Amino acid sequence: MQYGYFDDKEKEYVITQPDTPLPWINYLGCDDFYGMISNTAGGYCFYKDARYRRISRYRYNNVPFDFGGRYIYVRDNNSNEYWSPTWQPIQNKLEKYECRHGLGYSKISSTYKKIDTKINYFIPLNNNLEIWHLEIKNNNEKDMDLSIFSSIEFCLWDALDDASNFQRNFNTGEVEIEENVIYHKTEYRERRNHFAYFACSDPIEGYDTQREDFIGAYRNWSNPIVVETGKSKNSHAHGWSPIGSHHIKFTIKSGESKEIIFLLGYFENKIKEKFDPSESQIINKKLVKPIINKFQNKDNVKKAFNDLKNYWAKLLGKYQVECPDIHTNRMVNIWNPYQNMITFNVSRAASFYESGISRGIGFRDSNQDLLGFIHLVPDRARERIIDLSSTQLENGGVYHQYQPLTKKGNDAIGSNFNDDPLWLVLSVATYLKETGDWSLLDEKVPYENKPETEKPLLDHLKRSILYTQNNLGPHGLPLIGRADWNDCLNLNCFSKDPNESFQTTTNTEGKIAESVFIAGLFILAAKEFAGILKQRHLDEESNIYLEMANKMDSIICEHGWDGEWFLRAYDSYGKKVGSKECNEAKIFIEPQGFCIMAGVGIENGLAEKALNSVHQKLDTDHGIVLLQPPYLKYQLHIGEISSYPPGYKENGSIFCHTNPWIMIAETLLGHGEEALDYYLKINPSAREQISDLHRCEPYIYAQMIAGKDAPSHGEAKNSWLTGTSAWNYVAITNWILGIRPTFNGLLVSPVVPKSWSNFKITRNFRDVIYHINIEKIGEGNKSTIFINDEEIEGNIIPLPKSGEKEIFVDVKIS
Amino acid sequence: MQYGYFDDKEKEYVITQPDTPLPWINYLGCDDFYGMISNTAGGYCFYKDARYRRISRYRYNNVPFDFGGRYIYVRDNNSNEYWSPTWQPIQNKLEKYECRHGLGYSKISSTYKKIDTKINYFIPLNNNLEIWHLEIKNNNEKDMDLSIFSSIEFCLWDALDDASNFQRNFNTGEVEIEENVIYHKTEYRERRNHFAYFACSDPIEGYDTQREDFIGAYRNWSNPIVVETGKSKNSHAHGWSPIGSHHIKFTIKSGESKEIIFLLGYFENKIKEKFDPSESQIINKKLVKPIINKFQNKDNVKKAFNDLKNYWAKLLGKYQVECPDIHTNRMVNIWNPYQNMITFNVSRAASFYESGISRGIGFRDSNQDLLGFIHLVPDRARERIIDLSSTQLENGGVYHQYQPLTKKGNDAIGSNFNDDPLWLVLSVATYLKETGDWSLLDEKVPYENKPETEKPLLDHLKRSILYTQNNLGPHGLPLIGRADWNDCLNLNCFSKDPNESFQTTTNTEGKIAESVFIAGLFILAAKEFAGILKQRHLDEESNIYLEMANKMDSIICEHGWDGEWFLRAYDSYGKKVGSKECNEAKIFIEPQGFCIMAGVGIENGLAEKALNSVHQKLDTDHGIVLLQPPYLKYQLHIGEISSYPPGYKENGSIFCHTNPWIMIAETLLGHGEEALDYYLKINPSAREQISDLHRCEPYIYAQMIAGKDAPSHGEAKNSWLTGTSAWNYVAITNWILGIRPTFNGLLVSPVVPKSWSNFKITRNFRDVIYHINIEKIGEGNKSTIFINDEEIEGNIIPLPKSGEKEIFVDVKIS
Repeated sequence: MQYGYFDDKEKEYVITQPDTPLPWINYLGCDDFYGMISNTAGGYCFYKDARYRRISRYRYNNVPFDFGGRYIYVRDNNSNEYWSPTWQPIQNKLEKYECRHGLGYSKISSTYKKIDTKINYFIPLNNNLEIWHLEIKNNNEKDMDLSIFSSIEFCLWDALDDASNFQRNFNTGEVEIEENVIYHKTEYRERRNHFAYFACSDPIEGYDTQREDFIGAYRNWSNPIVVETGKSKNSHAHGWSPIGSHHIKFTIKSGESKEIIFLLGYFENKIKEKFDPSESQIINKKLVKPIINKFQNKDNVKKAFNDLKNYWAKLLGKYQVECPDIHTNRMVNIWNPYQNMITFNVSRAASFYESGISRGIGFRDSNQDLLGFIHLVPDRARERIIDLSSTQLENGGVYHQYQPLTKKGNDAIGSNFNDDPLWLVLSVATYLKETGDWSLLDEKVPYENKPETEKPLLDHLKRSILYTQNNLGPHGLPLIGRADWNDCLNLNCFSKDPNESFQTTTNTEGKIAESVFIAGLFILAAKEFAGILKQRHLDEESNIYLEMANKMDSIICEHGWDGEWFLRAYDSYGKKVGSKECNEAKIFIEPQGFCIMAGVGIENGLAEKALNSVHQKLDTDHGIVLLQPPYLKYQLHIGEISSYPPGYKENGSIFCHTNPWIMIAETLLGHGEEALDYYLKINPSAREQISDLHRCEPYIYAQMIAGKDAPSHGEAKNSWLTGTSAWNYVAITNWILGIRPTFNGLLVSPVVPKSWSNFKITRNFRDVIYHINIEKIGEGNKSTIFINDEEIEGNIIPLPKSGEKEIFVDVKIS
Repeated sequence: MQYGYFDDKEKEYVITQPDTPLPWINYLGCDDFYGMISNTAGGYCFYKDARYRRISRYRYNNVPFDFGGRYIYVRDNNSNEYWSPTWQPIQNKLEKYECRHGLGYSKISSTYKKIDTKINYFIPLNNNLEIWHLEIKNNNEKDMDLSIFSSIEFCLWDALDDASNFQRNFNTGEVEIEENVIYHKTEYRERRNHFAYFACSDPIEGYDTQREDFIGAYRNWSNPIVVETGKSKNSHAHGWSPIGSHHIKFTIKSGESKEIIFLLGYFENKIKEKFDPSESQIINKKLVKPIINKFQNKDNVKKAFNDLKNYWAKLLGKYQVECPDIHTNRMVNIWNPYQNMITFNVSRAASFYESGISRGIGFRDSNQDLLGFIHLVPDRARERIIDLSSTQLENGGVYHQYQPLTKKGNDAIGSNFNDDPLWLVLSVATYLKETGDWSLLDEKVPYENKPETEKPLLDHLKRSILYTQNNLGPHGLPLIGRADWNDCLNLNCFSKDPNESFQTTTNTEGKIAESVFIAGLFILAAKEFAGILKQRHLDEESNIYLEMANKMDSIICEHGWDGEWFLRAYDSYGKKVGSKECNEAKIFIEPQGFCIMAGVGIENGLAEKALNSVHQKLDTDHGIVLLQPPYLKYQLHIGEISSYPPGYKENGSIFCHTNPWIMIAETLLGHGEEALDYYLKINPSAREQISDLHRCEPYIYAQMIAGKDAPSHGEAKNSWLTGTSAWNYVAITNWILGIRPTFNGLLVSPVVPKSWSNFKITRNFRDVIYHINIEKIGEGNKSTIFINDEEIEGNIIPLPKSGEKEIFVDVKIS
């Protein structure tokens, strides 16, 4: 069953039924101010940091699960009936309902009592405010007396404190009301120099700023007393729960339309200019007023919305495909790069599953997110690379996370996730290939954010590689540390206390447990680093790293091979993990993908064997599970992975992040059929028709789909914020469709199913637009490339020397 | 306006209208298992630790503010109508509603469609389970086909993680269902050896364990789909949100009654006996079943309830008064000792304002709570004293908090709240006076919980005193450290970052800022310690401490006196705080109370002056405010106190904890009129008639009442968990009514208003019952005491040597 459809032309997913299996959400914002919004207007917004600068209050895991958000109420003052044009919270039986989730905006429109409403929610580029652009049309034959009530509940900034420290917080709430603007200024009187505001474009009949006055005791968002009676109380919040609500009252003639704009924004004043008059405690509004005034104007709002649409159209133009598969087209052209941007922007902070209070920017996460983002906005990617590498320690290790407001490493989590540093090499290599901006390597970047420790970024990469080289275990494989990519494989944590973290409580020396996954990643990173050095004409040094990679390749073949697949690890007793010798979890997906991506076993047939094993043991109708068979019992020496019920999360779900590694591996062996088959199994658009089972959004990847050992096999969870997005994008665009940047030009090497006789790709690479027309003329994967009908040597399209901005390429695959 | 009335005979507060201004709550449990329950059955329960062993899920600051709890639904299967016998969550118009909050139980009864229901919620003594004892009577002329649905939402144990880590927690939920018992066993498969269970006494028609199945998507507790349709789904939770719901279906004849019992409990198995069969993952229920069986039996439940009633009746018998003022009688005889027990039990963990996730057992809090609790259950007090002193550091400082599960000091908060150690001396002195159990002093108690550091408790007391003596500032007054009793007066924290704690971020050396409050407390503690030493015949050492006290007295008079009142402190620039020289906060309440309680200024007239100043500057109709005038602006060098809006919390509210210090000070000057006047202003029973303004429960003290500078002057907040309870009890029982234990007998010295011509007190002291009849025959406060008509010397009734268990005392005050 479907709950909507894709409007590919408008680049929107159109939800036609409000009661989706789970809230189907979207994100607003591209810069510093972000919002999460459901298809019924639930959600919240924040400035930069979802914990420390939460603007509006939201209750996770509520009953019903999505309740509270950006609610507007419409009231017919003749009949005294009122309704929610976004369905929630009142759930009136709307005559029509539609939610269009677009790129950076959501439009919710509905009809009730022949009154059409449309609310366009978006955040204008380069502005720290949400716009709620409401249009109302009266299709009745008579004039209507209407009231509109807006509502937002303010968060007292620190979302964790806001949800726990009531003995203090019920006393601190403060607001100002000036004309039709409500200012939320809790703690502005002390150490905060920032405030929120909620404005509207029209003169107001009244307002409310205290939740209980607006809603009424023992009532909720579905029956606020103020809306029921049609009379605002003009309440002024002192403590308790500050909210913002405007009341606009008007008569709308038959057939007429009206627009009202609401603005929910964030503003910082300079410390010395906080108050006006300066000796008062009143917010200085001199600098914020022009912004409010600007967006109270309908034309400016329309322009801002067009700017947003154009911004996205331009970004998506970087890579467009027209192929025989609609799900591939739609995800590659619209939704997958969009999700890449979102994961880059908010990392793992705020989603329907991430509450925004406990996660900073992950080093490993963010470097992987970059793989799917760099081509979209290289400048922002560059900044992120520098921010990340600034948290590296001098020994080459890195802070596992940093805090978005301060950009400092998170001491509470610390370091020693031994795969972390290597990901930096992959993201930097991708950046260099995409942009050719070699100046990045010379950028002086500090260690641990400490002044006077700055070294060129190249030095950081070197230390990243050497960190692994300096931390090898008994078999010569990399030591795993607290955990590698699989955060839940905790071989050095023997915690019996349920209140201890599996990751940060390490209690062995960590000198035994080794990761075959890191070994694969190491080879890949070392080869990339060697390539970078070679480009810089440091051939001798380059060879040192190639040798390291080759040596690790041999070690994997000797100690990391189990007979039919790659081992996962050695535990801290030196015993095998992910081996036929084990009773549970005999095979893991991660080393199969990463070792082959690193080139291990391709020549000697191990790769082929490993992929066969994946297919036989891990593949399901809904994607490839992480391991088999799942852990049925908790294993103290294995850690969190065995704490999950079988089939969920790392214990044998289809952990979607890992599936593209297998897709890429399949392309490396020339298996286009298999690669695309795996791709489509977890492609959300391809799963749209089973939305009742899948439950998550059909336009966005989820982190996991319950595995075959779970009672809910096929049910997705943890949508939006997952490395799944970047990796699937890399797999389909770079490896299956086969168009990928190299240091010296665009490489063309599709590995696609036999049935794809013809497809087209447009790729903007280093400011040149490549129109690539691909024809499959044989059974193999050999690409022959023609430019202006002339065949070129090899499959890398050299950069045009003549300054051409558009190049037409024909490719024959035989 | 009132929302109910006191039933003094039944020792209950009877709420007759469900929509009280705020949820009016009560506590269940006396030992290790506790529950918080509102007058409409909202709330939750936990085992020992409100954060780490939360049994049921509760959402704080919800909309409406109290939504979610122990809900039972009744359904008429003929009309398909259903209702909530506790009003919430459905809010049907009940024909009758009554909630009786009693001591350790709450009975909610109502009538709808001529069906009477009564639910008695309580926790049996020495058991880790809640009983919901439901009685139903059919007053209709016809038989009725009814369904009963129970409901509870399980918390996944760690309440903070449960409310934030959804990407994990939506995957971990597990239950078992066996006959009519639902077992919640999330994480039992791994590191937990405990589970919860929800049982019922009757055969069930069906059950549900997955929230969404029971409630239905986009519905809430007020319209669960299962109740609406009358059909349980027999859902088995795998992840998401495990709940428990039983369905009992029956026909009840006209005029007939029926009882059903629900049990919500917690159980721990031994690690080696977790599973049955042992190689399975199935809970071993061998040990829990007998407990469940026992309380499925109605007679056992009735007996357990009687035991609870008797337990409280006995406890309250320790001190009973019959005086001309009903509010005094009711609070002293019932509610104040009850609140003392609750604050002792749950400290500051779980209330409507304390979310149970961030606070351990406070050293300062708990020692003060003990002052009102020791006489109730001396053995438990003794244990607490040892737990507290076990967290003392070797230098005499103490951990500010400890964790209830581990009893270890909380490293995150640490130490250096410089008043902390002194409170231990007061609680120990109170214990010794109450019990005469001098063995406590010889108890070997470790420092910092470290083995082999054990010293007699006497040594701990000595180090407590010396900690102050070793930390004196430039004027010879005690250094304040991070903060003294007033946690919000932060003279050594200059934090400009709103995300930093005011208390734990210290950034000066702390060698300048001094506290006059601690000076007063020091004198009191040093005198008590001297008294203890003297009792032990260590006269010489005793004199050393008396000299210290005397010296500090002189220092206060020289450097701690401002002309009309006692100074509050010197800040870290050496400037006065709480002085006429200041622009704001010229006078604070704390030093006025504590210096006089310590005896400072009583002889030389300073005390009289200080109390006049309190009366003139701080007194209001609703109690005495903490300071005047309030801080209008934030002062970096003063800290959190100035962060509150004027009139709230420490910035000039009526901070009720401090008011009894002034009451006691007034009695020390013989001012019975003034003492009782202050007492009655904040006595909750005396404020019952202004419940619309006061808003909090009329049977329980709140931490604060908004001060005269606040827009909501007279509104109370933060009810239940406050040192206010113990101190008001001490003030009224020991000082105004004037019956207080000494080392050698019961002292009688009432200081009461002139109009009180006659009153009676019964006091159980060291297992002797004293019947004290007091007559006021003159204008003064001189008590003359007669035993068996014989006048005794002095006003201390000596301990009976003859083994008498009952003594009749007559007192004449002249």
